[in-house]
Amino acid sequence: MFEKHSDWEIGGPAITAVKQQLREWLAEDIGSGDITTMATVPAGHRSRGIIHAKQAGIVAGLPLVRLVFEVVDEHLNLNLQAYDGDRVERGTVLAIVEGSTHSILTGERLALNLLQRLSGIATKTYEYVSAAQGGTAKIVDTRKTTPGHRTLEKYAVRIGGGYNHRFGLYDAVMIKDNHIKAAGSITAAVQGAKSRIPHTMMIEVEAETLAQAEEAVHAGAHIIMFDNMSTEAMTTAAKAIRALAPHIVLEASGGIVPERVAEIARCGVDVISVGGLTHSFLALDISLDLNEVKKGDHL
Amino acid sequence: MFEKHSDWEIGGPAITAVKQQLREWLAEDIGSGDITTMATVPAGHRSRGIIHAKQAGIVAGLPLVRLVFEVVDEHLNLNLQAYDGDRVERGTVLAIVEGSTHSILTGERLALNLLQRLSGIATKTYEYVSAAQGGTAKIVDTRKTTPGHRTLEKYAVRIGGGYNHRFGLYDAVMIKDNHIKAAGSITAAVQGAKSRIPHTMMIEVEAETLAQAEEAVHAGAHIIMFDNMSTEAMTTAAKAIRALAPHIVLEASGGIVPERVAEIARCGVDVISVGGLTHSFLALDISLDLNEVKKGDHL
Amino acid sequence: MFEKHSDWEIGGPAITAVKQQLREWLAEDIGSGDITTMATVPAGHRSRGIIHAKQAGIVAGLPLVRLVFEVVDEHLNLNLQAYDGDRVERGTVLAIVEGSTHSILTGERLALNLLQRLSGIATKTYEYVSAAQGGTAKIVDTRKTTPGHRTLEKYAVRIGGGYNHRFGLYDAVMIKDNHIKAAGSITAAVQGAKSRIPHTMMIEVEAETLAQAEEAVHAGAHIIMFDNMSTEAMTTAAKAIRALAPHIVLEASGGIVPERVAEIARCGVDVISVGGLTHSFLALDISLDLNEVKKGDHL
Amino acid sequence: MFEKHSDWEIGGPAITAVKQQLREWLAEDIGSGDITTMATVPAGHRSRGIIHAKQAGIVAGLPLVRLVFEVVDEHLNLNLQAYDGDRVERGTVLAIVEGSTHSILTGERLALNLLQRLSGIATKTYEYVSAAQGGTAKIVDTRKTTPGHRTLEKYAVRIGGGYNHRFGLYDAVMIKDNHIKAAGSITAAVQGAKSRIPHTMMIEVEAETLAQAEEAVHAGAHIIMFDNMSTEAMTTAAKAIRALAPHIVLEASGGIVPERVAEIARCGVDVISVGGLTHSFLALDISLDLNEVKKGDHL
Amino acid sequence: MFEKHSDWEIGGPAITAVKQQLREWLAEDIGSGDITTMATVPAGHRSRGIIHAKQAGIVAGLPLVRLVFEVVDEHLNLNLQAYDGDRVERGTVLAIVEGSTHSILTGERLALNLLQRLSGIATKTYEYVSAAQGGTAKIVDTRKTTPGHRTLEKYAVRIGGGYNHRFGLYDAVMIKDNHIKAAGSITAAVQGAKSRIPHTMMIEVEAETLAQAEEAVHAGAHIIMFDNMSTEAMTTAAKAIRALAPHIVLEASGGIVPERVAEIARCGVDVISVGGLTHSFLALDISLDLNEVKKGDHL
Amino acid sequence: MFEKHSDWEIGGPAITAVKQQLREWLAEDIGSGDITTMATVPAGHRSRGIIHAKQAGIVAGLPLVRLVFEVVDEHLNLNLQAYDGDRVERGTVLAIVEGSTHSILTGERLALNLLQRLSGIATKTYEYVSAAQGGTAKIVDTRKTTPGHRTLEKYAVRIGGGYNHRFGLYDAVMIKDNHIKAAGSITAAVQGAKSRIPHTMMIEVEAETLAQAEEAVHAGAHIIMFDNMSTEAMTTAAKAIRALAPHIVLEASGGIVPERVAEIARCGVDVISVGGLTHSFLALDISLDLNEVKKGDHL
Repeated sequence: MFEKHSDWEIGGPAITAVKQQLREWLAEDIGSGDITTMATVPAGHRSRGIIHAKQAGIVAGLPLVRLVFEVVDEHLNLNLQAYDGDRVERGTVLAIVEGSTHSILTGERLALNLLQRLSGIATKTYEYVSAAQGGTAKIVDTRKTTPGHRTLEKYAVRIGGGYNHRFGLYDAVMIKDNHIKAAGSITAAVQGAKSRIPHTMMIEVEAETLAQAEEAVHAGAHIIMFDNMSTEAMTTAAKAIRALAPHIVLEASGGIVPERVAEIARCGVDVISVGGLTHSFLALDISLDLNEVKKGDHL
Repeated sequence: MFEKHSDWEIGGPAITAVKQQLREWLAEDIGSGDITTMATVPAGHRSRGIIHAKQAGIVAGLPLVRLVFEVVDEHLNLNLQAYDGDRVERGTVLAIVEGSTHSILTGERLALNLLQRLSGIATKTYEYVSAAQGGTAKIVDTRKTTPGHRTLEKYAVRIGGGYNHRFGLYDAVMIKDNHIKAAGSITAAVQGAKSRIPHTMMIEVEAETLAQAEEAVHAGAHIIMFDNMSTEAMTTAAKAIRALAPHIVLEASGGIVPERVAEIARCGVDVISVGGLTHSFLALDISLDLNEVKKGDHL
Repeated sequence: MFEKHSDWEIGGPAITAVKQQLREWLAEDIGSGDITTMATVPAGHRSRGIIHAKQAGIVAGLPLVRLVFEVVDEHLNLNLQAYDGDRVERGTVLAIVEGSTHSILTGERLALNLLQRLSGIATKTYEYVSAAQGGTAKIVDTRKTTPGHRTLEKYAVRIGGGYNHRFGLYDAVMIKDNHIKAAGSITAAVQGAKSRIPHTMMIEVEAETLAQAEEAVHAGAHIIMFDNMSTEAMTTAAKAIRALAPHIVLEASGGIVPERVAEIARCGVDVISVGGLTHSFLALDISLDLNEVKKGDHL
Repeated sequence: MFEKHSDWEIGGPAITAVKQQLREWLAEDIGSGDITTMATVPAGHRSRGIIHAKQAGIVAGLPLVRLVFEVVDEHLNLNLQAYDGDRVERGTVLAIVEGSTHSILTGERLALNLLQRLSGIATKTYEYVSAAQGGTAKIVDTRKTTPGHRTLEKYAVRIGGGYNHRFGLYDAVMIKDNHIKAAGSITAAVQGAKSRIPHTMMIEVEAETLAQAEEAVHAGAHIIMFDNMSTEAMTTAAKAIRALAPHIVLEASGGIVPERVAEIARCGVDVISVGGLTHSFLALDISLDLNEVKKGDHL
Repeated sequence: MFEKHSDWEIGGPAITAVKQQLREWLAEDIGSGDITTMATVPAGHRSRGIIHAKQAGIVAGLPLVRLVFEVVDEHLNLNLQAYDGDRVERGTVLAIVEGSTHSILTGERLALNLLQRLSGIATKTYEYVSAAQGGTAKIVDTRKTTPGHRTLEKYAVRIGGGYNHRFGLYDAVMIKDNHIKAAGSITAAVQGAKSRIPHTMMIEVEAETLAQAEEAVHAGAHIIMFDNMSTEAMTTAAKAIRALAPHIVLEASGGIVPERVAEIARCGVDVISVGGLTHSFLALDISLDLNEVKKGDHL
Repeated sequence: MFEKHSDWEIGGPAITAVKQQLREWLAEDIGSGDITTMATVPAGHRSRGIIHAKQAGIVAGLPLVRLVFEVVDEHLNLNLQAYDGDRVERGTVLAIVEGSTHSILTGERLALNLLQRLSGIATKTYEYVSAAQGGTAKIVDTRKTTPGHRTLEKYAVRIGGGYNHRFGLYDAVMIKDNHIKAAGSITAAVQGAKSRIPHTMMIEVEAETLAQAEEAVHAGAHIIMFDNMSTEAMTTAAKAIRALAPHIVLEASGGIVPERVAEIARCGVDVISVGGLTHSFLALDISLDLNEVKKGDHL
C-alpha cells in the first residue's frame, strides 16, 4: 500500500549522532551495571535471541534495534527477518540476535522499548492513511512529539505511510493566532515575515474562517491551515481559495478523529495533520526469547 | 485518594541535570531559531499565557513547566494554579505565565508536550489504583518506559497514586527465565547472585509455577514475581508461599488488563506491575491561550 | 541605510547555548589557567577597559562581548557605547567594561577575536549592499561559513544590511548539478523532492541556461538560481521566467565580484548570493585599553 | 622552500577529539537531515568526487578532508593527490573521493570550507615567509585566531613555513602593558612571575622602548617583544640587548605590513609575529566535481 | 585465596562510557599536544614498552591499560602478561605494548597512573581480607571513593578479594543518625522509607547501641550497621539480634584499623566496611621501559 | 611558613568548568536520586551542618566545599571558619552550612571526599617543605596525579607550600631517556626540539650522569633533571653545571624519601620533585555533624 522509504532512513550520514543518543539511553537503564546478568550469567555464555511480534501491526524501528546491539557489543550478530513498513502478524519473527548472553540481556529492554513505540506509531499512522484512501489528502504529523524522539517518531510516521510537517520552529514559518495578535493583523504578520526571513522559506497561516484565509492568501502566504473547521466549511473554503490561488497548499487541522478522516480527505484539502499519531498511541507488543547456543550450533 | 508526593519531587538537588535535559529538548524544537516569532512578533511584546485543561484527568508535570520557562527566559513569571496530583476538569486553569511573548511562544510546545504526556500517565495510573481499591496490592510501574524519560515517567506514576518498581538494571537483582537458563537452575542463579552482589541489594525471581516460586524462596530470594499466572493460581501460590516465608514480597505481572485489577488486588499479592502505565497511554489534552499585556496591566 | 535588526538578535531564547559555546572557546584560550595574570596581577585589582575601533567600519558582535564577559565573571559591569550596525570611525569607543582586572584580561582576547571577525563581515556586507543600492536585488550569504560560526556570521551579514540564504542542508531543498545528474533530469529531481519532502519546504534549482530554468519552473520549483551566468544572460532569462511564472524567486550566484554588483542588482533578479561575505573578509581592527580603577573612582 | 611538517600532524594521538569536533561541525550544517539529497538521489547511487584547486596557492588541510569523509561514512574511499605544503596551480587535483553519492554530498561543504580556510592561511603565511627570506627572523602567529579553530590555524601556519607562538594563556607568561601597570613595574611583574610559576615556563615581556627592554632583561625575562617600534629603533635595541644578554630571544610585533617584513627580518630580531596570518586571509578557491560511478568502473 | 572476578569486569557492555572517560583524562594530560614527543621522536619510530612492577603487591587495572592504549592509537599491540588479581613481585612483567613510539609515550602516564592507583587499592584490600581469614565476615568498601573513580575503585576492591557496599545514594536506603533526627525516631524513619521506596530496595540502619539496633529490627530494617562499637559490644549485640531475626545482615563500621580486623571478623557480623581501602592507600610502584623496534624485529 | 596563595585560587574565571565537573561527580553519587533522604526527611526540614577536623593537618579545598553546596542548592548558606593553608587541630571547625537538610545530606559525601583528599595532599606536601627548610630547593609535584584531578591536586600542593612542575605534556618540553633513544642523542633531541617548538617554551633534559647533563647544557637545554642520582653525585654535578651555565635550573628527582629531603635541599639543586605528594597520601579525617534548625534559630 505504501512504498519502502529506504531512501530516507534513520541515521544515514548522521548515524554517529543516533548512536551517541542510544549510548545515553542505555546508560539510563544500565547505570552502574546490570547487576543481575553480571551475577548470574557466566561471562562466556552465548545465546540466540528471537525478536517476534505478539500482535499484528506495522513494524518500524528495526534499524534502531541493529544500532542498539551494535552500541552494546560490536561482536553481536543481528539478522533482520523483516523490513520497516512490513505488516506483521502475531508470531512473525522480526530479528534474530546471536552472541554474548550478557550483551543481549543488557540491550534487550532499550531495543524493545524503541521498537514497540515506533511500531505503535507506524500502526496508528497506517490506520489513518488507510481511512484517507481514495481522497486527495496526505496524512501528516505535528510537533506534538515526545521530547528527544522527534526524528525517530517522524520516521515512524513515514514508515506508516504518512508524511512529515515541519521538523521544528526553524524550517518554516507557521503564523498562528498568537502571532497575528502580536503583529496586529494577518497582513502585517505575513508581510513582516516576508521582509525578514530567507527567500528559501515558506509561510503558513492558520485560519479559522474563509475571510482570514483570503487575507492570508492576499498577503502572500504559501500554505493555509484550516483550524478546527467543519468539513463543510473546509469544502467551501477550499473551493474559494483554489479559485483565488490555484497553487496554494491547504491543510486541515484540529479535532481529526478517525471517523472524520475519510470525508476530510475528500473535502479539497491537500494535507491532514494529526497530533495523536505521536502523542497518543499504543505500543505494539513485541518480545525477545532467548536460547542458549552450544558450541556445535551455527552462529 | 492518594497523598501529595511533595517530598519526592522532580529534580530536587538534581535540578541542574533536569534543566540541562530541557535545554537539549528545547534545542530539538528551536534548532537555528524560532523563525516565525522572530519575524512576526516585536521584540518588546509582552503577553499572558493561560495553560488550561481541555479534558478531565490527573495533572502531572507542572514543576517541569516552570523549569521549561525558566530555561527559556529567567524573566518569565509563572504562577501555578494547581498542584501535581490534582484531579482537574475541562477548563481548569493550571498555570499562568507572563512576560516576553517571544519567550512564551518559544517554550510553549515543549512545556505542553511534557505536561500532556505526564498527565496522561498519571491519569492512567489513577484508573488502575482506583480499580485496586479495597485490595491489598499496590500498583507499580516497569522498565517499559520511554528512553530518556524514565525518571519523569516514574514520577508521574507516583503522582497518579502508584509506586515504583526498580529504576534500572543497577538497583536490584531481577532473575528472569533467561538468567535461570544460563545459570542452570533457580537455585544456582539465586546463590550465584547472593555470593557476588552487595549485601545491600534484593533478589527478585520470576516464577511461572508454585514449584519455581518455592525453589526461589528456599534459595533465598526476597521477592517472587508471578509471571502470567491466573488469579486462581496466584491465590493458591500466595497462600503457600506465605506459609513458607511470611515476610516475602509477592508481585503479579503480565497480562494485567484493567478488568482483572480488582480481583488480582485481592488475591494475596503485594504488588501489581503494569507496563502499559508508561508505554500505552493517551496524552491529556492541555492548551495555552495567549493575551497581550498592555503597560497598564498587572504583571 | 538599513534598519536595526534588534528583533532577531544573537541568542534570544537560545542564549544558553551561545554561552555554552563561549565557555568552550574560552577554554581553548585559557586551558589550565591564565598564568600571566595569576602571577602578576593582585587578586583584588580592578580596572576599566575601553574597547575602541582603530579603523572605520560597521560594528557587529557587541552583544557577544557582553556574553563573553558575563561568562568569565558575572560581576563585571559592561556598558555598551554603540549598537550593532553602527558605522564607527577610528577612535569610536564601543564598550567599557569595569571590574576585576583578572577577569577582564582573561576574557579580552575572545571578546576581541569575535568582535573583529563579525565587524569585518558586516563591513564587507555593507559594501556589497551599498553597491546594490538602487537595484531590486538583496545581498544574501551562503553556506560557505566558518565551521561552528554559522549562526554568528549570518547574524553579522544581517547587521551589515544583507539577508540570509538557507541555514543548512535541512531547511530548504537546493537541487544542484550533482543532484540532477543522480536523479536523471531536472524534472525527475524536482518531482522526486515534491513527493517526499514536507509540504512546508521550498525547492530551489540551480540553472546554467534558460532552458534548464524553464524546465525547473515547469517541474514546480519555487526558486531558480542562475549559476555563473553573464549579466546579459541573466537579464534575458529573468524576463522569460517572469513571463512564465510571475511569483518565482530568482537568484544570481557565482563570480559576484564587487564591480558587477550594481549591474546585477538591476538585471531582474531578486537575490544576489556572495560566498566571500563569510569566507574572505578582513577583520576590523579593534582594541582594548586598560586603566586601573582606584577606590575613589565611579564604578 | 620549507620542509614537510609530517612529524607534527593534525590530530596524531588526539585524533578522536578532532573527529568529535568534526561531528559537531557537520551537525551545524546537516541539522535534521540533508533534505535535498535524501529526496533526489537514490540510496544506492555511487559517485567519484574530484577536489581541485581553482587558484594557485599552498594547500593545507588535506588530512582534515580525509577525516571529514571518514566521519560522514567510513565506507568512502579517499585518495589524496597532493600533500599539505604543496604549491598547487589552478586545476591541480588535490583528492579523489569515491563511494555513496549521499555521503559525498553531505560532507562536501564542511570539507571544502575547512580546506579553503587553511589553504588561505598557509598561502598568506608563505608570502610572509618568502618576504623574510635571507634574514634571521622566523614568522610566527599570534592568539588572534578564530575561536574553536586555533589548533588547526596554527597547523596551517606551520604548513605555510611559519612557526607558532604560544598556544594559549596557559603555556607561557606574556607580560603586557596592562600587567605591568597592575604589578607596579616591569621588575615587580617579572619577579612576581618568577616566584610563582612553574620553573618550566618562560617569561616574555612587551617593551616599547630600549629602557623597558633593559629593565625586563635585568629582572630575568627570557624573551623581549618589541611592540610597535620602528625598524631603526629595533635595530638599535637588538644590538644593545644582545650585548647585555646574548641568549635572549627578541620578537618584533605590531604593524607588520608585508612591505616591512624584509627589513625587519634583517634588523636583528629572532621572531616576527603577525596577527593577520589568521584573522585576515582570503580563502583559497577549491571545488568538488562529481561524476557517477557505474558498476563497471574501477572503484 | 580469592577467585578471579572475570565475570564482573571493568566495562563490559558499558565499555563505550569507560573509553569516553579515558579520552577526557588523556585530554587533561595532552592538552594542545605532547610537544616533546612531536619535536624529538621521528613520526615512524616504533618501540616496545615493557610494563613491570617495581614492588610486590596485587595487580589491578590491566584491562584499563589496554583501553588507554586503544584510545590513544588503535594500531598499538598490547599483550598482557598477568591477570588482575595476580600477586606480583618486584620485576614481574605485567604487559608489553608495541607500535608507534609517539602513541606509547602519549598514553604512558595515564596508563601508569591508573594501574598504580588500582593496584594500590587491591593490595590494601588484600591485606584486610587476609587479616579477616578464618572469621565469618567479608571486607567491603564505602562511598569514600575518589570523585569520578568510584566504579574503578570498587572494581579494585573486588580484585583484592573484598566486596562492594552500595554504589551510591540511589541503590539502597541507609538511615544514619542525621536521617533519624529528621524523621523523629528510628521507627518513623524506617516506616517512612518502607511506605515510599520501591519494594525492591533494602533498608539499612546505623545503630550505636543494642537498643537502637532492636528498634530498627522491629521497624523492619533489613541490615543493621554497628557504628563505632567495641568488639565486645558487637559480639553481644550480634547474638541478641540473631535471636530476634535470624536472617538480618550485620555490618561493623568505624575505626576499623588493621589490628582489629581479625577479632571483628569473628565477633558475629557478616560485613566489615573500611573507608580507608579507597581514601588512604599507597600507589604500587609500576614502570614502563621502552626499546626501539627495528624492522627485523617481531612485532 | 608559607604565604596564602589567594591570588591563584581554584577556579577563578574558570569556575564554570569546575562547577560542571562537580555536577558530574555529584551525579556519580546521586544517580537516580538520594532515596534515603527523599524517603525519611520531610521536604521543608532545615539543618545546620558543622564541618570539623578529626585530625591535625593542613586544610585545603574549602572553596570547593562552597562550590559543591552551591551546585547542590543555591539557597544553602555556607560560612567558612578557616582558610586553605591553615594548620588545623583535631576539633577545629572548618565550615558551617545551613539550609535544607535534603540538600546538605545530598552534597555531604562529595564535599568531604574532596576536602579530605586535598587536605591529605597539602599535609604531606607541608611535611616535605618543612624538611627542606634551610636549603635552597623548592618542593614540586609531578604528573603522577589522579586522572581528572590534576588541577585540584596541584592547587593542594601549592597550599601545602610546594610549587608546581609542568601541568601536562603541552606546556614544556621534557626530554627523557626514551626520547633520547629515539632521537639518537641528547644533542639531536635538544636541537630537534629547538628547531620546532614555539620560542616561548623551555626544554628540560633528564640526565643520569654529569656527562649527560653537560651535553644537554651545551645543546641548549634550559633545565637539567638529575634522575635517581645520589646526593653526592648531585652535589658534584650541580657545581660543575653552575660553572658552565650559571642560570640553568637544576632539578632532583627519583627516590626522594622524606629522610633524604634535608640533604638534597642543600646539595645545590633548585627544585626537588616528589611523585608521592599526589599518588600516595593519607586522607585527612574530616566530618560533618548535623543539627536541626528550628524556626526561632538564627539562620
